[in-house]
Amino acid sequence: MNKSPLVQCIGISAPPPSLQDNTADIDRLKRAAAAILQQEGGGRRPLSVPCARLGPVAAAFRSAGFRGAVVVNILPAGIEIVDFLPAMAPALPVMALDLGTTHLEAKLLDLQNGSTLAAGHIENRQIQYGADILSRIHFATRSRDQIERDGENEGLLLLQQAVIASINDLAGELAAKAGIKPAAIRALSVSGNTTMVHLFLGLNPYHICREPYIPLVNAPDPCHAVELGLNIFPQAPVWILPGIGSYFGGDLISGILVSGLDQAEATGMLIDVGTNAEVVLGNRDWLIACAGAAGPALEGGVARMGMRAAPGAIEHVAIDTATWSLNYQTIDNAPAAGICGSGMIDLVAALYLARIIDIRGKFRASPVPESAGHEHFLQQHLLREEGITSFVVAPAAKSADGRPVVLSQIDLDAVMRSKAAMYAILSTLTSQVGVEFAELERIYVAGAFGKHIDPRQAITLGMLPDLPLSTYIPIGNSSLHGAERILLSAECRRRSMEIGRKITYIELNVNQEFMIRFSGSRFIPHTDPNLFPSVPVFKEDSGAGDA
Amino acid sequence: MNKSPLVQCIGISAPPPSLQDNTADIDRLKRAAAAILQQEGGGRRPLSVPCARLGPVAAAFRSAGFRGAVVVNILPAGIEIVDFLPAMAPALPVMALDLGTTHLEAKLLDLQNGSTLAAGHIENRQIQYGADILSRIHFATRSRDQIERDGENEGLLLLQQAVIASINDLAGELAAKAGIKPAAIRALSVSGNTTMVHLFLGLNPYHICREPYIPLVNAPDPCHAVELGLNIFPQAPVWILPGIGSYFGGDLISGILVSGLDQAEATGMLIDVGTNAEVVLGNRDWLIACAGAAGPALEGGVARMGMRAAPGAIEHVAIDTATWSLNYQTIDNAPAAGICGSGMIDLVAALYLARIIDIRGKFRASPVPESAGHEHFLQQHLLREEGITSFVVAPAAKSADGRPVVLSQIDLDAVMRSKAAMYAILSTLTSQVGVEFAELERIYVAGAFGKHIDPRQAITLGMLPDLPLSTYIPIGNSSLHGAERILLSAECRRRSMEIGRKITYIELNVNQEFMIRFSGSRFIPHTDPNLFPSVPVFKEDSGAGDA
Repeated sequence: MNKSPLVQCIGISAPPPSLQDNTADIDRLKRAAAAILQQEGGGRRPLSVPCARLGPVAAAFRSAGFRGAVVVNILPAGIEIVDFLPAMAPALPVMALDLGTTHLEAKLLDLQNGSTLAAGHIENRQIQYGADILSRIHFATRSRDQIERDGENEGLLLLQQAVIASINDLAGELAAKAGIKPAAIRALSVSGNTTMVHLFLGLNPYHICREPYIPLVNAPDPCHAVELGLNIFPQAPVWILPGIGSYFGGDLISGILVSGLDQAEATGMLIDVGTNAEVVLGNRDWLIACAGAAGPALEGGVARMGMRAAPGAIEHVAIDTATWSLNYQTIDNAPAAGICGSGMIDLVAALYLARIIDIRGKFRASPVPESAGHEHFLQQHLLREEGITSFVVAPAAKSADGRPVVLSQIDLDAVMRSKAAMYAILSTLTSQVGVEFAELERIYVAGAFGKHIDPRQAITLGMLPDLPLSTYIPIGNSSLHGAERILLSAECRRRSMEIGRKITYIELNVNQEFMIRFSGSRFIPHTDPNLFPSVPVFKEDSGAGDA
Repeated sequence: MNKSPLVQCIGISAPPPSLQDNTADIDRLKRAAAAILQQEGGGRRPLSVPCARLGPVAAAFRSAGFRGAVVVNILPAGIEIVDFLPAMAPALPVMALDLGTTHLEAKLLDLQNGSTLAAGHIENRQIQYGADILSRIHFATRSRDQIERDGENEGLLLLQQAVIASINDLAGELAAKAGIKPAAIRALSVSGNTTMVHLFLGLNPYHICREPYIPLVNAPDPCHAVELGLNIFPQAPVWILPGIGSYFGGDLISGILVSGLDQAEATGMLIDVGTNAEVVLGNRDWLIACAGAAGPALEGGVARMGMRAAPGAIEHVAIDTATWSLNYQTIDNAPAAGICGSGMIDLVAALYLARIIDIRGKFRASPVPESAGHEHFLQQHLLREEGITSFVVAPAAKSADGRPVVLSQIDLDAVMRSKAAMYAILSTLTSQVGVEFAELERIYVAGAFGKHIDPRQAITLGMLPDLPLSTYIPIGNSSLHGAERILLSAECRRRSMEIGRKITYIELNVNQEFMIRFSGSRFIPHTDPNLFPSVPVFKEDSGAGDA
């Protein structure tokens, strides 16, 4: 009971009814449960039994001889008794879900001991209606005319049904792995961006992407699984991590929870890069956040050869300028299918250090080879087609689909915009509160970006501030981890609400300072190289900042 | 707000969203509502919006320009925002329901001002599955074999569907009368006996009629109308008056609420006679209650010519022994179809005073006529068939079906048992707490029994204690009135729960003292005539007490 998980199994023993003690079954059970809960520090909170559970709970209580265990949902408005078992449950399976735009990732936990029962992921079936958030918002809010023309249901309903079906599939898969029925899953926690949460609840996302960017709801109250058509235990509470705004969802609150930013004495930073870059700065006294488009080039949405961190994605690239050789590594060592964010950063940093691109991120018009090896390397890797220069990372012979994996000038420009946006976001945010980068002891980097990225190369690009590498701490899929913690601890549930109230959100879409900083960041590493003492600046490039 | 009705409409005005104030629509609405509710003394109670209402409420809030009125359910676990209106609702219709075994009686109230919008009643469709409570419990708990043999659904489900359909019909009828749609009904309060409440909720009533007579639930938590298949506003709270035990339901709590027994300084009594007689004794400091079978003979279940208080029922009978004439009055002056409880009591008292029956309630073998009129009267009214004496109240020519309305010795015996049971219940209860009848300033008499009965005749019979007639106060359909009060006032909701906790219930089915008192009460007026100084005792009957 210490951490007070969202769902608990509590031993109960009540005196059997008699003529002298003729309280009704449910009232008898509530009386016994209230006494235990109060003993265990739950205080006198409203205790209820949902209408649909009165019959089954009373029957189980009676047939077990008025002793056994109740399963209770610990909710903000009170405690719900949703089941009665003849003995303490050996396990109390619950599901934590990272509700991603492209993928759903979930973990089945046992709330009795916090252990993991199963884990897995599945594609978000909403993809059929739109690859990214904006196209889904568009699909959800199609006009009546469009809907009638296509003879389809309302877009919002289709999107909700798609994500619920995906979750039900994933729950079924995880339950099978754990050897239980999906109906044995006693709770679901959901961490996702604001749009995904809206579509999950069937809520109109129209205003999310329109100034002043107002979600329909930030902190939805918990509901029962059955209300959303989920196939888990019907009265399983569905707990959604609260968001702060249209571009700052519960997935970020998860990141803050997992990093502990909201509890630290020292000021720290959290960076989460997906389609957007979302950044939080703060400590136990204050939190400030912003979000901006910095990710697309690194995620596959913009760069032609870009892709998510999936098997076949080139995740690391190195160019050895001593031997003029290129090495790359793909995820799962599969044939190269594209380049993911970390590979893109490695590659562009390497191209800069190999002086194949200049500080503006442009392929040099005619690099002068310094050696035969260098010349051979350039011949082998540089490609000029229709006036556009590209860099061949993996030749056709080694690629997954028989076409070379290349980075074109167009892709490069997109990466440069992304890296500039990222640094502009970070520096705008710190400047808002007068904090220097050097004051930050820890910078938590969430998600696949944090897991795969090499901070050294990101610093070389001028994407991340030039700090000791130990400052950067990858925290993995913090959206999923946050969803797990919410299930496990009342303190985390309290903190998630508290963070929502405490955080100040800065809208960068309309921030002048951001635009100025963005311009200054469109060079490698920066217009002001003094900001990046660890990054070499090449003589022939000096003055290019004026170009 | 003073009385705090169950559902309220509260004016709200929120600042429109901006880049500086980008709180989500629902969170904005909750913030504004919380401020108003706190101002109005609601304190900081959990405020939630049910999942299914997020979309509609947010859309209405936005399209009204962030000002208008919220409709809120004031529930024990917190306050629910269930709707948003562009302006204060002109009316807030809610339905109070007396959930009777044979009839449902309801009133549509406007919670904005407490006025009545419509009233009506309907037969309980459960009657097709059983006329009385016991036969319905039997039908609800039929064995699997029986159900399969009849090829029907589970009895419990059929009974629940029948009562829900009856309520939906009644709601539709009342809504039509008031010129609104049923979906505009914002709440339902239900007052009924314990079995009716179980069947309404689809709960197994098996143990209600089996020692130790334990209901499945006494105080169900409020739920939403949609959960029970009711056709009113889906998120209308359904508030059920709590019961105390199998034979003491929410209808009695209603009676206590309406009589104010639980708030009075002086000890009073409440009598409700339906199929059972239910009696409560007490004051603001303590309440004691019991129930027993005293009604059937008065309700049509036992006496052959007995019937409910409906058109054609003989409700009053008088015998003028000066002129030897009999007068009776039927409800609505319709042709006589039977005798209802009050008529039965009048008749038996009159027969006693006319010395046609003796103190044991037996027709005298051969009364000696005192005059020609007397002789004619006896010839006209006394009937002897197959050794059984009957008294003709209405001749065949004046009856509804061409058959005379008569009271046979068998009916008379049943009335005697009922009257004895009633007095035994009252005297057992008072003796339990050492209260004398004379100490009671007020005796509230609920229901049709209270409305139609002449306390003078009931005293003559020895059914009610021999107190000044002004002691007896009819309170009408207090079950329905209680359901109304629950909707109108938080104080009444609080009292209804408090009464449940405060009341001590005595099970008469196993009470020895009751059996002794029952035997002593099987004479007119009583074995001990000193208990009834106002009732004449006839000489020739003296000593009959030993018979």
